[in-house]
Amino acid sequence: MSESVTMQGLACPLPLAHTEKIVLGHGSGGKLSHDLIKTYFLPAFDNPALRAGNDAGIVTLDATRLAISADSHVVAPLFFPGGDIGKLAVCGTVNDLAMMGATPLYLTAGFILEEGLDMTLLARVAESMRDAAREAQVQIVAGDTKVVQRGKADGLYISTAGVGVLRDGVNIHGANAQPGDAVILSGTLGDHGIAVLSARGDLGFDADIVSDIAPLNELVAAILETGAALHVLRDPTRGGVATTLNEIAQQSNVGIVLREDALPIRPAVAAACEMLGFDPLYIANEGKLLAVVASQDAERVLRVLRAHKYGADAALIGIVQAEPRGRVLLKTSIGSARVVDVLMGELLPRIC
Amino acid sequence: MSESVTMQGLACPLPLAHTEKIVLGHGSGGKLSHDLIKTYFLPAFDNPALRAGNDAGIVTLDATRLAISADSHVVAPLFFPGGDIGKLAVCGTVNDLAMMGATPLYLTAGFILEEGLDMTLLARVAESMRDAAREAQVQIVAGDTKVVQRGKADGLYISTAGVGVLRDGVNIHGANAQPGDAVILSGTLGDHGIAVLSARGDLGFDADIVSDIAPLNELVAAILETGAALHVLRDPTRGGVATTLNEIAQQSNVGIVLREDALPIRPAVAAACEMLGFDPLYIANEGKLLAVVASQDAERVLRVLRAHKYGADAALIGIVQAEPRGRVLLKTSIGSARVVDVLMGELLPRIC
Repeated sequence: MSESVTMQGLACPLPLAHTEKIVLGHGSGGKLSHDLIKTYFLPAFDNPALRAGNDAGIVTLDATRLAISADSHVVAPLFFPGGDIGKLAVCGTVNDLAMMGATPLYLTAGFILEEGLDMTLLARVAESMRDAAREAQVQIVAGDTKVVQRGKADGLYISTAGVGVLRDGVNIHGANAQPGDAVILSGTLGDHGIAVLSARGDLGFDADIVSDIAPLNELVAAILETGAALHVLRDPTRGGVATTLNEIAQQSNVGIVLREDALPIRPAVAAACEMLGFDPLYIANEGKLLAVVASQDAERVLRVLRAHKYGADAALIGIVQAEPRGRVLLKTSIGSARVVDVLMGELLPRIC
Repeated sequence: MSESVTMQGLACPLPLAHTEKIVLGHGSGGKLSHDLIKTYFLPAFDNPALRAGNDAGIVTLDATRLAISADSHVVAPLFFPGGDIGKLAVCGTVNDLAMMGATPLYLTAGFILEEGLDMTLLARVAESMRDAAREAQVQIVAGDTKVVQRGKADGLYISTAGVGVLRDGVNIHGANAQPGDAVILSGTLGDHGIAVLSARGDLGFDADIVSDIAPLNELVAAILETGAALHVLRDPTRGGVATTLNEIAQQSNVGIVLREDALPIRPAVAAACEMLGFDPLYIANEGKLLAVVASQDAERVLRVLRAHKYGADAALIGIVQAEPRGRVLLKTSIGSARVVDVLMGELLPRIC
């Protein structure tokens, strides 16, 4: 997911937030998360794979290029419309690998269980992970379980890591966006975030909104098969499309201009966001990808995306320009333009 | 560590504990942990690498054999004599890979942080991970951070996963122990568990006991270089030497006989165990390995172990026999023999 250390690496050189304690905002996937990683983890763990600042680290082993990624999952509640923490744990890591153009192969799973957790709930989570792994065609080859005392966790946390292999010639990187490129979003905005909110009862009404959680490796394989000049792939999870595009704009040192009227969004999600005062550009997605491709290939890519169940609502949402470097602009339907910044604090805690 | 799913796989076909809620014992690394994994995770995730039941899953990618492992760390307190949760997280995963005879190369780290956690503490943990990774010569190539609300974690949990490569010809497996083999322990028993207890103030007195946490990959490389017929390697973490040897006895369907007077143990650890009523055979170690080798190679292996700082107290503690199949016996100094069973419930919660 876009909050992985590898992605936040040097992508976002922001001032250190002046706090000496961890706050929820440090988990937002936004500026505070970037600061935390840039200040505490990157200097300590620094290496080329991490510094590259993508969704997964790339290493070469006996001429085989491997993508390696990691994710921890603390979503609350554990079950929500369209998914659960288990499906999230598998799809999140599968998607991190897929966003490098890698074929996901092997996953690991570490479970932190709270004393008193219901076994039948655990069984449902394991089955959900099994089903997601089958669909994504990955194997869970190692794992671990720990138990903490009542009150020392919130039911169940799952940390997954993944290993995938990159075919020759695949070179997808957050720094590869070029002026003139097309920016494609594979479907509607914000479904996951609003679905989790509704499961928390925070909407105040019953919305028929389902999370978009899905493994995206098949979708990525379909794009690669077109032979399109695919420059950047990223899944807009925590921090949403706005934060993810800002990261790309900064890594590639380009400007990205979005067309408001081109942004695909479900009416129910738009209504919920309006009611709650949320901008859907900042809401987490778990089954969507952003693809930056050469403009002449945009139509081809849109065609294969729309032919797939997870890309039916794919849309060309913007273009890459030389200016303003490192920034994202939104052209409104009335023609005005506003700067779209990264998420600052915390919008929705425990969303994944 | 020896509690990984891959190890507990089918190694220990025990009856399902009749509980419908998670209890601390499910994190013990003993029977309840085995039951949990065997009942809920193995059936769902079943695949050859997992079924093999070792410390890490082995997969083959373009003719390269990879070892993949995972571990979650919830030790309390976060700092204790000789180490901290960060050093534990790195060494635990490095050792899981090393116990397969693999050369550890890449690690991932997923952090679950509690709101309100002190940043300076986080910095110390990151530096500790950096130092451990340097010593083990591994790179942390991907990671993730999540934050949960105050009271929803216990400061900080770290989940690590690791990837290592196996040289040709290396075939170390829990099922390879053969009658006549020698059982070697690389050092003293129980240092880690008692060190953590003392940090909790549970000893009631000040003991000068330091955790043995250490990366064991160099020690394993030294054993491999001797060309000794190395059949099984495993690190006796949760559940201790007793539980780990039971797992090997069951996987290999052999009997293991220990000589009580050959077990290396520090006087302070022995005193603490006697006072608390603990059997040191069940106390967790974090920098020790058990090696099952052909008897004619035992002296050679002991020599290289004792030449290394992490193997100075290495000892030949027992032998492998055909009978009693799947059991471990302890020959006491007065010549009597008693059965050494696996750890049943929970001895020391949150020890790693």
